[in-house]
Amino acid sequence: MNEHTIEAQSPVNPASVAGSTEGPAALRELTEVVLTALADGAVERGGPLPAGGPDAVAADVREHCSPVLPLDGTGAEAALRELVQAVTRGAADPSDPHCVAHLHCPPLAVAAAADLAASALNPSMDSWDQAPAAGVIEAEVTKSLAELVYPGADETPDALVTSGGTESNLVALLLARERARAAGERTVQVVCGANAHHSVQRAAWMLGLPTPAVVDCPAGRMDPRSLDRVLGAYAGMPVLVVATAGTTDEGLIDPLPELADVTAAHGAELHVDAAYGGPLLFSDALAPRLSGIERAVSVTFDLHKLGWQPVAAGILAVRDAAQVDHLSFQADYLNADDDTEAGLPDWLGRSIRTSRRPDALKIAVTLRALGRRGLGELVEHCVRTAQDFAAAVAAHPELRVRAGEPGISTVLFRPRAADALPAAEGDALVAAVRRRLLDDGRGVVGRAVAEDPETDCGERKLWLKATLLHPRTGAADLAALLKLVAHCAAEESTGPSPNAPYVPAPASPTEDLRTRTRSQGVPQ
Amino acid sequence: MNEHTIEAQSPVNPASVAGSTEGPAALRELTEVVLTALADGAVERGGPLPAGGPDAVAADVREHCSPVLPLDGTGAEAALRELVQAVTRGAADPSDPHCVAHLHCPPLAVAAAADLAASALNPSMDSWDQAPAAGVIEAEVTKSLAELVYPGADETPDALVTSGGTESNLVALLLARERARAAGERTVQVVCGANAHHSVQRAAWMLGLPTPAVVDCPAGRMDPRSLDRVLGAYAGMPVLVVATAGTTDEGLIDPLPELADVTAAHGAELHVDAAYGGPLLFSDALAPRLSGIERAVSVTFDLHKLGWQPVAAGILAVRDAAQVDHLSFQADYLNADDDTEAGLPDWLGRSIRTSRRPDALKIAVTLRALGRRGLGELVEHCVRTAQDFAAAVAAHPELRVRAGEPGISTVLFRPRAADALPAAEGDALVAAVRRRLLDDGRGVVGRAVAEDPETDCGERKLWLKATLLHPRTGAADLAALLKLVAHCAAEESTGPSPNAPYVPAPASPTEDLRTRTRSQGVPQ
Repeated sequence: MNEHTIEAQSPVNPASVAGSTEGPAALRELTEVVLTALADGAVERGGPLPAGGPDAVAADVREHCSPVLPLDGTGAEAALRELVQAVTRGAADPSDPHCVAHLHCPPLAVAAAADLAASALNPSMDSWDQAPAAGVIEAEVTKSLAELVYPGADETPDALVTSGGTESNLVALLLARERARAAGERTVQVVCGANAHHSVQRAAWMLGLPTPAVVDCPAGRMDPRSLDRVLGAYAGMPVLVVATAGTTDEGLIDPLPELADVTAAHGAELHVDAAYGGPLLFSDALAPRLSGIERAVSVTFDLHKLGWQPVAAGILAVRDAAQVDHLSFQADYLNADDDTEAGLPDWLGRSIRTSRRPDALKIAVTLRALGRRGLGELVEHCVRTAQDFAAAVAAHPELRVRAGEPGISTVLFRPRAADALPAAEGDALVAAVRRRLLDDGRGVVGRAVAEDPETDCGERKLWLKATLLHPRTGAADLAALLKLVAHCAAEESTGPSPNAPYVPAPASPTEDLRTRTRSQGVPQ
Repeated sequence: MNEHTIEAQSPVNPASVAGSTEGPAALRELTEVVLTALADGAVERGGPLPAGGPDAVAADVREHCSPVLPLDGTGAEAALRELVQAVTRGAADPSDPHCVAHLHCPPLAVAAAADLAASALNPSMDSWDQAPAAGVIEAEVTKSLAELVYPGADETPDALVTSGGTESNLVALLLARERARAAGERTVQVVCGANAHHSVQRAAWMLGLPTPAVVDCPAGRMDPRSLDRVLGAYAGMPVLVVATAGTTDEGLIDPLPELADVTAAHGAELHVDAAYGGPLLFSDALAPRLSGIERAVSVTFDLHKLGWQPVAAGILAVRDAAQVDHLSFQADYLNADDDTEAGLPDWLGRSIRTSRRPDALKIAVTLRALGRRGLGELVEHCVRTAQDFAAAVAAHPELRVRAGEPGISTVLFRPRAADALPAAEGDALVAAVRRRLLDDGRGVVGRAVAEDPETDCGERKLWLKATLLHPRTGAADLAALLKLVAHCAAEESTGPSPNAPYVPAPASPTEDLRTRTRSQGVPQ
């Protein structure tokens, strides 16, 4: 039991609403339950993710939270405490320094707190009379970020708030299709790198576009000469080239100035997916790495990666605000002509969604709280941490860092034991080490297939990947993770065959994760 | 100043993260700033929305929050307090009983509190190693809701979490297109009612489908005989019929059993957009109104309408889980084959998004807290409030309720003064009354074009619309709103011509909304 257990005294009516003048009092009682459950759940977890693998996590959640739709409810406090504590105990928590697998950032407390106001007020961004002030805040945010991407542009730049890079890329392709149609063409041909995020292919599929043509990416970056050859095959057709500034696997930035030159020479248009790299623009020292991005017609930009927002915080910046007109839509209940003529703002054409959470609020609070300089310093911290981490890997006798500078804040590495094996077995060892770390609940490390510059032919191998997005922890906090990786690699390479199917450690479905002991023999 | 102003004592580092064991302490300090700003902002607003119209709101927000991206930050507390208080002061707050324009619900405090945990932990639903427990919770939620829609189905039903009805309808059309393609057809023809939500037309446009065929909707509901005729024109082609259970304008439910019969007779498939009406299924008394819905291949279902969730809480239920396979996608970094074979769950094909907030958490907490019976009672409360409100309008000498039962919880009405004018001028008066209420900050009432059953030919007119979604306020709380509407109608019909362009009340850009006085002469 816990000092914050309050429902025995004064249960909150579970039908209490969050807003208006009465809401904050109910919300204060219930957020206290949540904060306590978050703290208790993190202690119970005791690491970056729960031990035991999928079956153990599922058993724990179901034990405490089923049935999720009972006939009669449990009341607000009990439901909150049990479910929030279970989801915390069973989280892969990016705020833990050893959770580094993905472009999955630890959100700032200031952003998460601001997001509570979005939940409580529930402004919906599809009409003025659902979000009068939230719409103004969104306009301020999108204007600032559009100017960050397109400083001093001849056109008036603009930006849309999206659910993430996937939606940003989808809308970028949709706008390109509509520009083509407006010019009397049937469709647009997308050309992207082999390094492009899968959402580019998926967007083309959804929108009914031809399958994107894929350009070679030797060493992980799009090759301008290969792009030139590919574009030659589409002469006379509308083409959208999609370059990447911060690839998911390696954090690499395509050579934007050269790609912009080639694209322009063919009369094509350039979109840059800077979902990962975009926030380098906050830093005067790092912004030059994105030189050329301002030549793109549109730029994908996520603030739930480097930007430390809870999902979702996607942005699509466009060089010319008029492009957005292709999303215009009229629905009498939301933006009747006479209302618009009378001065009520029309926001329906700002998104492919209708009801829409004001994600701009948490972004605005974060931008104001930290300023451009503060955000730039956090980005620089992550880049520096990656460099330090790469150096630490290089200095480790049992690990090998992939040769070359880390891409943005991504470091690829592998156990030397994997190099000693035939290629397929080496890759299997890498995958097994990663899964072993997940199963032990000790480390959340990613995986990426990438070329090995130390081989003659740039052989493609499976690597472990650390995506370093924590704004406050440094490489020293990761020393234990390196020891752990080396230890697991030693065990996996001498123990059961790495090619054997992965069998999760046995977990009793009734065993409580709170009393689960970690796997033995792992260095502390 | 305020007892909760804390930054002078111990400012929270704005780079503090929200998760892990240390996060909740920072989050507790910052959520207190938010709760205070929510309470203070609601008092300053003093009504359902701010007075003064778009210009006054914009001036207030900009005065307190610009520049949104300064070079140096203001710190976490100041940014939170200023922005949250401004967005609250300038909100159209659905927790206020007089905010009834849209399917824009007051979120429950329990749901908003649960959503804070989603923000703090930031699970992303695109892979197991970003959301181990959150994925289990989502699976429990989707299973429960799929069984609610499809009880005792022969197939195994399933459900996806979406960003709302718009995405649900989009995915429903996408799945229909892919079923057609899998059967060797090129595309699918969508057939919907004239009463369908605009997202159906928009989805067809995005997906590159033929323009949907539109079926007549006399009295606001899809006519089965008209559907039969339309389907006759598409014999031999894959067709998806989209019916609506709870239209946006009138809350009406299409005759689902008859439409299902006609659809089946033509070998077509049925999708039901029950974004509004779906939660009637929580109530044993109201569920029969949706009889026939279980014959649809897919059902759109929003819990940010009747369901009282903060946006987003969309659901797409499908009768046969195998349908979802069409969304499958493989990305090595998220769901490599060997990881999936080794037992790591593959969630990438559960959404058209990639990074994805765990909206299922707040839904799960709400379902558990209230139970099916508790939720059913809240839905019944809203339906009853609409009936009571309609009776109150009918009893008002200066107002006229649209004849017939209210659709779900939607009531259409208009000032009798509008009926006394020629049609166009009457409609203009209705629109002017609505805008006047918005400008005064006294009422957020919607608008809808719908037939008038009291005319011989069912003439289409503009109506005021009240969408009653508040789970705790009743018709008595709306009496003042009716007085206000009648008062505004009297003023607008005798004052400036309702055909004149709407001119917002003059507002000084430097005038603070906190000291703004309301328009005079409005009944209290």
